[in-house]
Amino acid sequence: MESVSLPTLRRLPKYLMLLQSLEQQRVIYVSTTLIAHELGIEAIQVRKDLEVTGVVGKPKVGFVVSDLIQGIIRFLNWDNRREAFLIGVGALGSAILGYQGFREFGLDIIAGFDNDPRKIGKTIHGIEILDIAKLGNLIERMKVRLAVLTVPAAFAPEIAGIMIFSGIKAIWNFAPCHIKAREGVVIENVSLSQSLGVLTHRLSKMEQNYSEVI
Amino acid sequence: MESVSLPTLRRLPKYLMLLQSLEQQRVIYVSTTLIAHELGIEAIQVRKDLEVTGVVGKPKVGFVVSDLIQGIIRFLNWDNRREAFLIGVGALGSAILGYQGFREFGLDIIAGFDNDPRKIGKTIHGIEILDIAKLGNLIERMKVRLAVLTVPAAFAPEIAGIMIFSGIKAIWNFAPCHIKAREGVVIENVSLSQSLGVLTHRLSKMEQNYSEVI
Repeated sequence: MESVSLPTLRRLPKYLMLLQSLEQQRVIYVSTTLIAHELGIEAIQVRKDLEVTGVVGKPKVGFVVSDLIQGIIRFLNWDNRREAFLIGVGALGSAILGYQGFREFGLDIIAGFDNDPRKIGKTIHGIEILDIAKLGNLIERMKVRLAVLTVPAAFAPEIAGIMIFSGIKAIWNFAPCHIKAREGVVIENVSLSQSLGVLTHRLSKMEQNYSEVI
Repeated sequence: MESVSLPTLRRLPKYLMLLQSLEQQRVIYVSTTLIAHELGIEAIQVRKDLEVTGVVGKPKVGFVVSDLIQGIIRFLNWDNRREAFLIGVGALGSAILGYQGFREFGLDIIAGFDNDPRKIGKTIHGIEILDIAKLGNLIERMKVRLAVLTVPAAFAPEIAGIMIFSGIKAIWNFAPCHIKAREGVVIENVSLSQSLGVLTHRLSKMEQNYSEVI
């Protein structure tokens, strides 16, 4: 498998956001130098990252903004609709069900799962909540390959195991628990606490330094 | 300012999650080797990261799990309550207001702000929504230093500007728009699309390779 590095993959959506805002401002061409400057990334890195999309820039002019947007969307496979299950319809799970923003990346959550009898059979933001006992079976039958995991940490490893056994190939894990990578399965552990930690630590450091100065 | 690297800061919450799950399993001691193995990080890196907490392990036994937990929490300043404003009470903003999970990291959102007259004056998940026109003034008067930004991308730079001018020192930016770092202000751009991109690209690659094999 021709494999693109994780840091490159993670930067592509950043480029996309910037390019889309440039397009809204009716900018036609963009240079790697400008992208690099706007995002605080080295120009040589930007050039290397954008190469993976196969989109070719014009000498002295740069890239056509709309070409590059399409190239990144195609590369990330965001031009294809992708069905997914969401497991764990608590506060975070419900929020994700209600959040339309992921649809523009092709993510189509077709069902939610929970073990709470009060939730099973209900519809949240237009998406039906099913019994988690049926999860494995439905993954097999419906050939769903992507799962959004929003259960409490204590349940996450077991449910990940069931899902992978049933045919899930990619897990977007929001549970505050690290799920180990396995052969043939892609796992992205989203830890919002990681970026909050950066903020709270640095903010308190700044305040300490400030009070020392006084 | 004694400065800890960004990658180290981001790994600390990962260690904390693992340590808390070990504590639940009544594990008393933990070695860096075990942490490294569980999280797929080099042992030497784990050792270096944990040094910043000032917690000292015992030779041949390792760290006392509960000491390390306290050390990381203290280092990230999660043992202190931190008041914050949330700006932009759309789908994502409302979800964050309703999500209790961040409270354990000391985050205390004391008010939401929006420009929609139908939302202003209302209470969402117990938190009052105020007119965004009052944002700058209230930041100054209440000396709030942390802001959670959940407005549409097009409004994010302007609002960030107002907030920084009024005294905000740390922005947790969920708007799909990169906000540039400035002297004396910490900005964490949370882009959920970045990790979704990793999943959708890799999943489609796997499927292509699979169909080539057939």
